[in-house]
Amino acid sequence: MNKPENHTPRRQFIQQSAALSATVMLVGPTQLLTENKAMKNTASKGYAAKSKSDKLDIWSFERRAVGDNDILIDVKFSGICHSDIHQIRGHWGAQTYPQIPGHEIAGVVSAVGKNVTKFKVGDQAGVGCMVDSCMTCTSCTNGEEHHCDNHATVFTYGSPDKTSPTGITQGGYANNLVVKEHFAIRIPNTIRLQDAAPLLCAGITTYSPLMRSGFAKGDKVGVAGIGGLGHLAIKLAVAKGAEVYAFTTSESKRKDILGFGAKEVIVVDSLDKLKPYAGRLDYMISTIPYAYEVSNYLACVRPYGSFTQVGQPVGGQLTINNSIFMYSRVNYNSSLIGGIPETQEVMDHCAENKIYPQIEVISAKDINATWDKVVNKEARYRYVIDMATIS
Amino acid sequence: MNKPENHTPRRQFIQQSAALSATVMLVGPTQLLTENKAMKNTASKGYAAKSKSDKLDIWSFERRAVGDNDILIDVKFSGICHSDIHQIRGHWGAQTYPQIPGHEIAGVVSAVGKNVTKFKVGDQAGVGCMVDSCMTCTSCTNGEEHHCDNHATVFTYGSPDKTSPTGITQGGYANNLVVKEHFAIRIPNTIRLQDAAPLLCAGITTYSPLMRSGFAKGDKVGVAGIGGLGHLAIKLAVAKGAEVYAFTTSESKRKDILGFGAKEVIVVDSLDKLKPYAGRLDYMISTIPYAYEVSNYLACVRPYGSFTQVGQPVGGQLTINNSIFMYSRVNYNSSLIGGIPETQEVMDHCAENKIYPQIEVISAKDINATWDKVVNKEARYRYVIDMATIS
Repeated sequence: MNKPENHTPRRQFIQQSAALSATVMLVGPTQLLTENKAMKNTASKGYAAKSKSDKLDIWSFERRAVGDNDILIDVKFSGICHSDIHQIRGHWGAQTYPQIPGHEIAGVVSAVGKNVTKFKVGDQAGVGCMVDSCMTCTSCTNGEEHHCDNHATVFTYGSPDKTSPTGITQGGYANNLVVKEHFAIRIPNTIRLQDAAPLLCAGITTYSPLMRSGFAKGDKVGVAGIGGLGHLAIKLAVAKGAEVYAFTTSESKRKDILGFGAKEVIVVDSLDKLKPYAGRLDYMISTIPYAYEVSNYLACVRPYGSFTQVGQPVGGQLTINNSIFMYSRVNYNSSLIGGIPETQEVMDHCAENKIYPQIEVISAKDINATWDKVVNKEARYRYVIDMATIS
Repeated sequence: MNKPENHTPRRQFIQQSAALSATVMLVGPTQLLTENKAMKNTASKGYAAKSKSDKLDIWSFERRAVGDNDILIDVKFSGICHSDIHQIRGHWGAQTYPQIPGHEIAGVVSAVGKNVTKFKVGDQAGVGCMVDSCMTCTSCTNGEEHHCDNHATVFTYGSPDKTSPTGITQGGYANNLVVKEHFAIRIPNTIRLQDAAPLLCAGITTYSPLMRSGFAKGDKVGVAGIGGLGHLAIKLAVAKGAEVYAFTTSESKRKDILGFGAKEVIVVDSLDKLKPYAGRLDYMISTIPYAYEVSNYLACVRPYGSFTQVGQPVGGQLTINNSIFMYSRVNYNSSLIGGIPETQEVMDHCAENKIYPQIEVISAKDINATWDKVVNKEARYRYVIDMATIS
């Protein structure tokens, strides 16, 4: 049984923050690098895969030097997302190795470039799924850097990256990270870093389509697939006033799900379980990450309502029953994370309203075993690596 | 080469209408049946399939007597829709035979039940894809009888029907039809019956989603698949002020398509031809009736625009590339015909604005050969059976 972590009492939190600040002061020399003409790369270590079938193992490597617009983050916590496994295992295409996954990254700023205005050393900061884009196109200037019209979005790990000594971006299962300040998120001091980390992927990925759906208070919102993303979708929708219907295949999650605020839990052990909900929901979001029979879920939404798929099946292929689409009259769309301004919004919203993911903090040495648990649907509901345990 | 029919000059049209009226007067005795307590079934003949693999052949059968809320239509023209072929051939599920297809039915009222107010004998009338529904549920009272919440929609042919002596509804490849007046459409005298017929399926099926999309004048509307439905979609969208981009696999249709008013014709002989249009359209409708790679077409629509599939693949199965959906941010939906009020609307709109399908009138004896032409994509663009040629 996984025991959810209790939240740190406020006093303990302040003590911790003070300790973190003290640590940051000690890294002053790194900060100075940014003013040095002959800038040195940043020494890093993290958990990398050497091939698609390898276990992750500790790896020392270099990141770029901290540039004028960059910040250096001492990573404190890094969430484990199912996407990490999909990508490293080559489910979404061939990869370059060694590669360090991780795009739910929370830490403390330990150096800033001379142009940086958003952060100062000692601030809490996070990084989600991307670290660069063109920043001039319509999508980028509209706060949708993940949809850069010039196809210049650089994802947090595995993306080709000329600025990286390893040739690709390296993610957050590591002790530090260099990132353009624009792509770093301010983490308020009112939220713990381990709770903030999952908001940077699981949080924004569900928050963005939920907000776009425009549901009103009292509307019936369905959430299908109650894992790392789904449990946050429930909490986020409930906090915005929705009546949430949670669809899961795990009877064992029922009690937790009611605890997250869902009005009803539907254990879908057969597609027949969906029938009583046909046309009843105002909106539905599905986090189910494999090629399932989406049409039957979609039919739970009322005519002219909408349905968003955020789980991404292996290979991206999904077979739909167009007859069910036709009779249901539901709009289907798929959503990819969210932009930087909206990621800041969900972070601030969760900090302010005390919306926290249900996490279990693990040691770095347990990453491989934990990945197996994620694959086996044992996560309750997000594993977060304590990067202080990296060795 | 199929030569499009010229439109009958107005004087000739009026002469024809007068002749039709004279014919109707002769059928007075049928009308009297409606006032007869011992009502007799209606003698009919039409072109039926005896099995899913049979050719259609002439068949004498009975329809119900004309009830108090019914009208009897002398069918003059009946359009040939690809759906007729799909259904009779069992592509969408097992069927009952003998079965007469046809749901683009235009004719002249030859008898009315005592409660009928919408029609009088001699009026032009049409019937599309459905002939009954519960008429009390939310969808029915909202003018969406084709989406009856009580699943009581009765389609024009092949639906179980207790009122029919043959046990199922029999369609419009026949000399007459008995139908509840609510499900009959008034056909203004300013449009010829052969031009009106295709509006009752091809017209409404494209008009309904086009109107729902809410495109504005000058918006870029894509139409994929330029056959019976697609060519009407072009004409309807152009008439409402859209800039239409037509996507076809037939180079030979280019000139016709420009004649329908399209701004640009894209001959999609490779999916690469779609790339320059990525994200450029405001809305797109696809009439492609088989399991094609929909995602690449969908990606031609701008972010947060929408795409409607009206063609229905065999078995209803369609495999989508969810990655393309995710990056395109387009809403996908599928649409089924339209309700009775909207069918009346498109009929009136087309009559008023002289929007006519491009048809070729055929004799009843050529139905089987014409079905082969439809399957072989030879239709330019809608075949309409002249029911006066039934023998």
